Amino acid sequence: MSIFNRVTIIGSGLIGSSLARAIQAENAADTLIIYDNNASVRDIVSSLSICDEVFDNVEKSTQNSDLIILCVPPCKIADMAKEVTPHLMDGAILTDVGSVKSEIVETVTALMPKHAEFIGGHPIAGTEKSGPKAGFATLFQDRWCILTPQNEQSENAQKLKFFWQTLGSNVAFMDAKRHDLVLATTSHLPHLIAYALVGTAIDMETVTNNEVVKYSAAGFRDFTRIAASDPTMWRDVFLGNKDAVLEVLGRYITDLTELKRAVRLGDGDALMVKFTKTRDIRKRIVDAGQDSSEPNFGRNHSDN
Amino acid sequence: MSIFNRVTIIGSGLIGSSLARAIQAENAADTLIIYDNNASVRDIVSSLSICDEVFDNVEKSTQNSDLIILCVPPCKIADMAKEVTPHLMDGAILTDVGSVKSEIVETVTALMPKHAEFIGGHPIAGTEKSGPKAGFATLFQDRWCILTPQNEQSENAQKLKFFWQTLGSNVAFMDAKRHDLVLATTSHLPHLIAYALVGTAIDMETVTNNEVVKYSAAGFRDFTRIAASDPTMWRDVFLGNKDAVLEVLGRYITDLTELKRAVRLGDGDALMVKFTKTRDIRKRIVDAGQDSSEPNFGRNHSDN
Repeated sequence: MSIFNRVTIIGSGLIGSSLARAIQAENAADTLIIYDNNASVRDIVSSLSICDEVFDNVEKSTQNSDLIILCVPPCKIADMAKEVTPHLMDGAILTDVGSVKSEIVETVTALMPKHAEFIGGHPIAGTEKSGPKAGFATLFQDRWCILTPQNEQSENAQKLKFFWQTLGSNVAFMDAKRHDLVLATTSHLPHLIAYALVGTAIDMETVTNNEVVKYSAAGFRDFTRIAASDPTMWRDVFLGNKDAVLEVLGRYITDLTELKRAVRLGDGDALMVKFTKTRDIRKRIVDAGQDSSEPNFGRNHSDN
Repeated sequence: MSIFNRVTIIGSGLIGSSLARAIQAENAADTLIIYDNNASVRDIVSSLSICDEVFDNVEKSTQNSDLIILCVPPCKIADMAKEVTPHLMDGAILTDVGSVKSEIVETVTALMPKHAEFIGGHPIAGTEKSGPKAGFATLFQDRWCILTPQNEQSENAQKLKFFWQTLGSNVAFMDAKRHDLVLATTSHLPHLIAYALVGTAIDMETVTNNEVVKYSAAGFRDFTRIAASDPTMWRDVFLGNKDAVLEVLGRYITDLTELKRAVRLGDGDALMVKFTKTRDIRKRIVDAGQDSSEPNFGRNHSDN
């Protein structure tokens, strides 16, 4: 017997299809169902053989499942939850993978029947690619998954934790509001400033696009990877986590303005202080196993 | 016979020591000399066997060389050039690898004797590591090297171009001022905003450092790599390319402020427009061979 009897994945993009592959690889469900409302996506998913059945009907997809995972973009989670919740079986766990949590947890919890439970989830994993073909089974390996249960000690919370651990993730419980502030710092702000930078480079009238592309290895290319992530998902993230994003963005613009002042005044000492303290945190990220210490992510030693 | 009879590398950090390794690998010099003013660095360089002789004397290092490459940090290039230029032999080429060009070209050209020529150079290659041990022979492979000769058709310009091509680089000639503006966009601004972001994250009082490190894979870690680059070099870059950096930084803050406004107003359409147009440039960078198309730089499929 697997951890769950019947698992339903709602939406089969990068995350949903990777989850399916990981569940298959780890035998974490006796039966694995994928629901997708898009016919051509369903055809692709069927051809990939990453689940037992592909459905186009929400009721059939969810009614006998003890775990249902909403893998649609953040802004669609509330609407999808409205369709799913009337069909939840006794004792079912409903969860999601959205990058913002406060709003989702509040909205979906209000929709839940008494006989089932919603636990917010956010696997911190992804690539700049989208769609069911972009998924792979090891996406969650050694990555963090944050869960926001109301009661961390409950059987459901522990069971969902064990499920994600089985897929290779490290699991942390966190309050939804705190999640949103932490992620605004480590994820949402980095993406926003990368999008802004790529926009600036495109608009630089005196620098042709060709030169920006040609000399992108000097730093710029790393930002374009981040800024190539799914636009819909990121729009939803910024709409869904407005307050926390505006707080850290405000602090960031202050810090940037200080650096600008140091450059303008030619204040080398101030620049050295700021540039030196950032090295330590890099070392700690590598030590914590959250990145490769290979120079340039190992790119220089490969053939790309 | 090699391209040059006797090549002298002044300064043996990441770039200088990589150049030495590449010159050895490609037999681009009959004799290869490294000068370094730091005794412990000289010891390391000697133990690495990456050149024929290691000197602590500028005159001896340079007097019989037909190519001398200044590989010291940008702010030290002018002082080093003052020491080197009195000893240049007839017909010698003096070049450098500094990330800024206008100021260096102007200053060093003024110091040159009539019987030798200075040609500014900038190999767009590097990693976040520093020091002679961090170097490797393939650092310049398939990377761009920008040269700023006064006359692109001259024998010296063509000879230096061929030299860099032999080390695996693509060579472009460019006016020094234009170089500084292009690099301000593709390199200096990206580094400045990465330093600012890491600073913001460190200062976020409500988010402990541990959580920033723990959840860094969500985007933040890519910025810490860039912001872990050599602080001295980057201080010198921002002091040496002030005008161009302030120009693109001003544009960037305007773009960022527009995004902030769209987030504050909840303007999803404006966000979609900005997030979508950035994908195209990513594709062109990958198509131009300037980055890997592997999701996440291939990190997800490796064991880090």
